[in-house]
This record gives sequence, C-alpha cells and structure tokens, in this order.
Amino acid sequence: MGLDMNIREDRVDDFNVILFQDFETLDAFGPVEVFGSIDSLGIKKIRMNFYSEHGGIVKSHQGVKVFTERSSDLVNPDILLIPGGMGVRTEIDNIEFIRALAELCDNSRYVLTVCTGTALLAKTGLLKGIKATSNKSVFDWVSQQDKEVLWQKKARWVKDEKYYTSSGISAGIDMTLDFVKDLYGVETAESIATHMEYLWNRISDHDPFAPK
Amino acid sequence: MGLDMNIREDRVDDFNVILFQDFETLDAFGPVEVFGSIDSLGIKKIRMNFYSEHGGIVKSHQGVKVFTERSSDLVNPDILLIPGGMGVRTEIDNIEFIRALAELCDNSRYVLTVCTGTALLAKTGLLKGIKATSNKSVFDWVSQQDKEVLWQKKARWVKDEKYYTSSGISAGIDMTLDFVKDLYGVETAESIATHMEYLWNRISDHDPFAPK
Repeated sequence: MGLDMNIREDRVDDFNVILFQDFETLDAFGPVEVFGSIDSLGIKKIRMNFYSEHGGIVKSHQGVKVFTERSSDLVNPDILLIPGGMGVRTEIDNIEFIRALAELCDNSRYVLTVCTGTALLAKTGLLKGIKATSNKSVFDWVSQQDKEVLWQKKARWVKDEKYYTSSGISAGIDMTLDFVKDLYGVETAESIATHMEYLWNRISDHDPFAPK
Repeated sequence: MGLDMNIREDRVDDFNVILFQDFETLDAFGPVEVFGSIDSLGIKKIRMNFYSEHGGIVKSHQGVKVFTERSSDLVNPDILLIPGGMGVRTEIDNIEFIRALAELCDNSRYVLTVCTGTALLAKTGLLKGIKATSNKSVFDWVSQQDKEVLWQKKARWVKDEKYYTSSGISAGIDMTLDFVKDLYGVETAESIATHMEYLWNRISDHDPFAPK
C-alpha cells in the first residue's frame, strides 16, 4: 500500500520551493518539472510556489533570475523542496534562515532535498536518527552538519519518514518521480517520465556516482 | 576534429535563452544547467542571458517566474536556446515574435531547440533542407510548420550545420552535453555529466520514445 491512501483526492497540493542566492538551477527545476507535470497532464490540481527569505529576485548559480515571495508569507506548508548549490555555503551560517527553515520543515507534510540542500535540512536538527543522502563529491562536508543523521553514502536518493533526500543535481528528478509514485501511484509517475521523454532511474540504491 | 577548433579560447561565450509565457520549465533549465556548468566548473567564462519579446517577468508552464531582458536589447547573438512548451501554440501565430526570432537565429553562431521549440525555429523558414527533430507526442503538428525540413522521426537529438534540435523535455540535456562535447571536447562534457550526477544518453539516434 502506497502513501496515496493518505491523500485526499479533492485537495490541492502545494509544492513550495525555497530558493536562495546562488542555488543550483536543476536542483530546483528538475523536481519542479516533474511535480508540476501532475497538473500539466491534468491528473490533479497543483499549486507551485516559490519563496526566499526576503522575497524578490533570487539568482541561480547559472544566472536564472527567479521572482519569489517572502517565506514568512508561506500560508500552506505542504510539500517543501530545498535545492542545493554554492549558496548553501552562505545560508548554512545564516541563523535566521535556518531557524525559519526548521519551522517550515517541521510544519510541512513532506520535505524533499536535492544535493547540498540536504546540508541545510541537516543543519535544522530535524534529521537526527533519519536516513539521508546528498551529493557525493561533497559528502564529507554535508555529513559534518549533523553527525547524528544516518548518512547513506551509496544511494541515489533515500526516503525515511516524511523526508526524501537525493544525491547530486539530476538525482532530484529520479527522487521526485519516486515521490510522485508514492503519492499518486506508479502509472502517474510513468506517464510523467514519458511526457518528459525521461529515462527514469528507478532504483534508489543504484548509485553510479558513489565512491567505489 | 571537433568544432572546438573554431572556438577562440580567450572569448566569452554568450548563451542566450529566449523565453515566452508558458514555456516548459526543463526545456530551458536542463540545457542552462549543462552549459552554465562550464563556468561553474571553472572551465571557461560563460555569460548566461535570458530574453523575451517584451522583457520583464515570464512565467513557465510550471509556474516559475523568470526575469528577462527585451530580446531587442540582445547585443551578442552567439548561442541561442529555444525551449518548447504550451506557449508555443500562441507564439507560432505571433508574427512579430517569429520575425524577430528569424533574425536572431540567422545572426547566432549556433541555435539549439528543445521539444516544440523546434516548431518555432521551423516557422522562421531557416530549417528548409536541414535535418531536425522534436517532441514525439506532437511530431505531426510540429512537422507541419514547414514540410521542407528534413524531419527525423527517430532521434533523441539531431545536429545539422549550426542547428541542434532535440526531442521532448529531458532530451535537451543530452543534446546540450553533445553540443558541449563538440565545442569543448568529450572530457568537458563528461565532467559536467559527472558534476550533475547525470547518466548521459550519448547516442543521438537511440530514441526509446519514437513510435515503434
């Protein structure tokens, strides 16, 4: 039995993306493409919302300027996506950002992280005793953010309780397809992968980028 | 010998993305992640620029609000990316947009399209006698935009002269890696794929989404 039994058919899901300066473009927009396609394909109404600490324009590491709302104005904590990227190195020491993120994660139904986004989630302290993964090239730095996390070195993504954490950048696409599968069933996930003409890597512990 | 012999080491490449209302998120930001990573990885300075017909905020079909400059202010036509998406159905009949796009494509060193972005390029008339491909689920509609294009029904992406055209959504990532390979060599493309933890589909005519 999948998690889909917990989902009311008549509700609108809010997919909330928390952005910050210098986030990694595909960490955010791979999952946004996958989850937003639930709505594009007419399967279910989804609200896609984009937030940052102060609102306004936030620029990705690859130069995409995205308009965001203030995260303090987020009214429907539901599904939360935290991307990674160079900007994580700054935000990890931003006490106000981490405090607000902790509250947001605590209130959200599900929390998804991509790449070093897991470091931000770990910094909130909410991952203690939870299995999680992150980018393989900076795994040591990420895992030092909280040593009580059950860090998984060889995993494309990991799910544990309400937390879905993925490895680097493109792994977020595979993780989000798996998340969609858990919420809406495998047919929905497959129809999105086909719509995207994407060769879905379905095996969460098959990780060609983990150290040998 | 690759195209890299044509590239001056000391020049800055401009990667210009032309956006419009209701573009498909990953069509644009998959290639942006790949090409922008040339700069992230310190391989070469790249300028990533985002334009639309009227400038200002342009919203993707999945709700991403992107700040753009006016395409008439584009000063360095160089590499041009045209995404697809639902908005193509509107822009294909926007005579002013197509006229400006034709001029921009003509002036650009390379033109890359993803998914139904190929329909917009075909509409300019510049693809006559050129091999090209597009999204497999709406291939008939796309190919009707110009019957003198040498349409390739089974291809993940196609390159011909200065034009790189790809199949649906995620195929743009594979195409852009191939484009990077042609410009900067296979090691650069491989290091980007590894950085993205992306399993690169390297064979342009292996197309699991083409009709049987």
